[in-house]
Amino acid sequence: MRHPRNLMRLSWKELQSLELREKAAYFNVNGNPYHCLIAQQFDRSMLDNLGRLATCIRRTAKSKSGMRFLGSLLDHKRAMLYFSQPSSRTFLSFYAACQILGLKPAEVRDTRTSSEMKGESPEDTVRTFSSYFDIIIMRTPQQGFAEKMAWVLSNTERPIPIINAGSGKDQHPTQALLDIYTLQRSFERLGGIDGKTVVFVGDLARGRTVRSLSSLLTNYEQVRQVFVAPPPLQVGKDVLAQLAQARVKYELSDNFEEAIRQADAIYMTRIQDEWDQTPGESSRIDTDKFAFKKHHLDAIRPHTVIMHPLPRRTEIETAVDADPRAVYWRQVRNGMWIRVALIASVFGLAEVVRNNYDLNLG
Amino acid sequence: MRHPRNLMRLSWKELQSLELREKAAYFNVNGNPYHCLIAQQFDRSMLDNLGRLATCIRRTAKSKSGMRFLGSLLDHKRAMLYFSQPSSRTFLSFYAACQILGLKPAEVRDTRTSSEMKGESPEDTVRTFSSYFDIIIMRTPQQGFAEKMAWVLSNTERPIPIINAGSGKDQHPTQALLDIYTLQRSFERLGGIDGKTVVFVGDLARGRTVRSLSSLLTNYEQVRQVFVAPPPLQVGKDVLAQLAQARVKYELSDNFEEAIRQADAIYMTRIQDEWDQTPGESSRIDTDKFAFKKHHLDAIRPHTVIMHPLPRRTEIETAVDADPRAVYWRQVRNGMWIRVALIASVFGLAEVVRNNYDLNLG
Amino acid sequence: MRHPRNLMRLSWKELQSLELREKAAYFNVNGNPYHCLIAQQFDRSMLDNLGRLATCIRRTAKSKSGMRFLGSLLDHKRAMLYFSQPSSRTFLSFYAACQILGLKPAEVRDTRTSSEMKGESPEDTVRTFSSYFDIIIMRTPQQGFAEKMAWVLSNTERPIPIINAGSGKDQHPTQALLDIYTLQRSFERLGGIDGKTVVFVGDLARGRTVRSLSSLLTNYEQVRQVFVAPPPLQVGKDVLAQLAQARVKYELSDNFEEAIRQADAIYMTRIQDEWDQTPGESSRIDTDKFAFKKHHLDAIRPHTVIMHPLPRRTEIETAVDADPRAVYWRQVRNGMWIRVALIASVFGLAEVVRNNYDLNLG
Repeated sequence: MRHPRNLMRLSWKELQSLELREKAAYFNVNGNPYHCLIAQQFDRSMLDNLGRLATCIRRTAKSKSGMRFLGSLLDHKRAMLYFSQPSSRTFLSFYAACQILGLKPAEVRDTRTSSEMKGESPEDTVRTFSSYFDIIIMRTPQQGFAEKMAWVLSNTERPIPIINAGSGKDQHPTQALLDIYTLQRSFERLGGIDGKTVVFVGDLARGRTVRSLSSLLTNYEQVRQVFVAPPPLQVGKDVLAQLAQARVKYELSDNFEEAIRQADAIYMTRIQDEWDQTPGESSRIDTDKFAFKKHHLDAIRPHTVIMHPLPRRTEIETAVDADPRAVYWRQVRNGMWIRVALIASVFGLAEVVRNNYDLNLG
Repeated sequence: MRHPRNLMRLSWKELQSLELREKAAYFNVNGNPYHCLIAQQFDRSMLDNLGRLATCIRRTAKSKSGMRFLGSLLDHKRAMLYFSQPSSRTFLSFYAACQILGLKPAEVRDTRTSSEMKGESPEDTVRTFSSYFDIIIMRTPQQGFAEKMAWVLSNTERPIPIINAGSGKDQHPTQALLDIYTLQRSFERLGGIDGKTVVFVGDLARGRTVRSLSSLLTNYEQVRQVFVAPPPLQVGKDVLAQLAQARVKYELSDNFEEAIRQADAIYMTRIQDEWDQTPGESSRIDTDKFAFKKHHLDAIRPHTVIMHPLPRRTEIETAVDADPRAVYWRQVRNGMWIRVALIASVFGLAEVVRNNYDLNLG
Repeated sequence: MRHPRNLMRLSWKELQSLELREKAAYFNVNGNPYHCLIAQQFDRSMLDNLGRLATCIRRTAKSKSGMRFLGSLLDHKRAMLYFSQPSSRTFLSFYAACQILGLKPAEVRDTRTSSEMKGESPEDTVRTFSSYFDIIIMRTPQQGFAEKMAWVLSNTERPIPIINAGSGKDQHPTQALLDIYTLQRSFERLGGIDGKTVVFVGDLARGRTVRSLSSLLTNYEQVRQVFVAPPPLQVGKDVLAQLAQARVKYELSDNFEEAIRQADAIYMTRIQDEWDQTPGESSRIDTDKFAFKKHHLDAIRPHTVIMHPLPRRTEIETAVDADPRAVYWRQVRNGMWIRVALIASVFGLAEVVRNNYDLNLG
């Protein structure tokens, strides 16, 4: 495996001082991710390649012989899933992704272990655990911890790739990748993501998925972004500044019914009241006008897709689930496939997978 | 895999209104279980087939090549063990059963996950998790939840089989299957289960295993059922009504020493004081007369088997363990084999396993 | 697999009354471990064989084909990791060791299970769990529990090997094996462990690793042991009595700087204040003079190795990590390799591994 060696030439402080997009050079090698730490390390060509790879893998997986091929790719490697923050859905998605590639998984979920109680530094703990494995998939409440560990290990005899499976309010790059992959699939026969209108709905102020997806969409041409929310939950000014800088068209609105009529994709989100400053703060906001009810299915276009990062509460009626345009359950499964593709890329297996696909299924 | 498609034609209310035996048509396909949700879905022929399959598998597993054959059957599939209620023994038995078939297991044990805290419905949670796996093995404190999920998923694009690994006081079908399999093995050279006398001993009022086994035994001819318990712990009238309806001979007794003399199988159970209405209620009942002591070994017949679903307390002296008629430890292992057979049946592998057995070991 | 059958001829009381070294005959078969329960069951020849085997395995593991060979050795077997005491690092090390050999792992970590609450004896619990697996790797807070289970299972129809992964303050034999293996590797081209000076530093009164390693070193010729600690934390008299009996040279000192100059290996340990009789007791001892600082690297010899069982606090400055003589991170990985070698030995695979090595890499 080739390493982004230059990471070890930086001090931790120097790395931190870089702009997000500048970090890409330290996390990628030759257009492939080595670490996967931030959404901004992926450019258009990497996103396109990952999506195509995920589709190859998804189709290969339909047959028993295909599953065996995939399962033989990394059956000599072991992965550690270090989840110090509970998250069953992301955990299981990565766990299944490892299993599909034959990568043998082990997990650390409870971090109140004897070692940390014995006064060991978190860096020593993760370095110790890393000794037994070939890749770390890591979810932590601390912002930047996955990045810190990538930097720490790059200065050792045994650097290994690190995938960020969510770090606090900060980054959750594989969620952004699965959203992009869902859009890629949805518009596969409609000219792709370029030129589409994406409508974000709900708690746009506090949802980390909206921020990441909005940022990744700037890689595409002529994508219009519409942000629909009650004013107190409208998207942050930093996101808008980023869009302006990238010369991307955007609109703000609080008219849900009007906005969804123009949408190619509707990205619903739930109210994140766990971040309320004062208890019950968001419950005083009338969010019912921003919920997708069954009758809205008549208002949207035949090709429009309804997405949701899940979990949902009441912002989408369950009666909507049966409509083919409701793709949020497929989105869950896309998350697994894009993670398989990501891990395969990290271990330099993209070409092997594509060759096998071309030979047997192409 | 063939599905019991008609399940989706029923509403949840309609399904719930069916008698237990009527549900079989919705859980089985062509005499094989698709879902395994209730003991009553198994008829005589299914029980016989499962038992024979378990024996084929058990013998196949004795050699390394046999284990490799078994381990190749489902190495392209993944299982989720969703155990929201702790149960190490049932969990490990299923986990090992998956491993024997090469089926890659993942587990969810703690359900106080972020998602549920975030207000997601239990149905959405399980549906999300189901996206990553090919079968769900599920233990929950809520009665009927496994059945509910089978129904929910049957109405989606991706229905998958569900095995009930225990749902509250309600059902624990694989425990009943392992008890039947233990009887089948014990009487293999004695004409099978037909015509035998099964003596149930202990807390018959509250043990779910006794209820299920008693019910499944009505599939056999001329089985006599004897219920031996202190009066306050005697078996429920609904169980007896069921036996009367099926025209099965039964007796009630509080004379342990007399009853075990006539038994072909003695099914011991522990006092389930966790269900006491008032604390210490059962401790005031003299249960010592209903314990199997070492000297009772002299009173029972040479072929009589002593069973126990475990865990035990003092109702069987440990000195009894060494006697060959004490089969409760073998019963534990039978539980693993019958679960392997069940999963193999669910995935339609019974014939492949039997053919391999006939070719190599028959 | 051959069993040390004679274990079942002893009563538990008789087994307990034996001296540690006398027990070896009951745990080993023909110079191979069957159970691994105490450090004292390993003699010089077993230690040499295990170390050589670990090196074969480590080198075999460098290629994909080698990993596949290793992964095929026990892919028909299952291991239970019964860790009733939390310990992520030992757990993960064993877990990875199982995965390397293809041995399918399952884990029991939380022992407050329903069964134990239901009044089952710990022996019944472990015997039940053992039914599903081919080996038990066990960590418990109770002294002697792994030994007890080995004895219990030896009297059943299905005895299986047990590996002690740490039992209270008592024994942690695989930690001692990994320390020996690290010394073997470090002095591979320097004539081996014989004749070397090993300097133990830190909390020698309470560290179980120091006691075990000191004991195992008596298997080697002319090893000088130096114990460097503040007087209240100096090594116990029983350890010194053992050394005197084995006619091993030792010294006590509280002069860290002088001692490390003569060392071939420096074995650093942390203050084990969790064993303090009164809170803060050890914090009143000045231990800073016993810490390895960066400038000490100039004082030690070019071939001297610095070891630490980890976790560390401040007794080794992190700036020391980058020096090639700091082998404590390699020591972690040695732990994994020696555990692979141990499990392979238990299953009688040492010769197969060595033959494959000689054929392909020797």
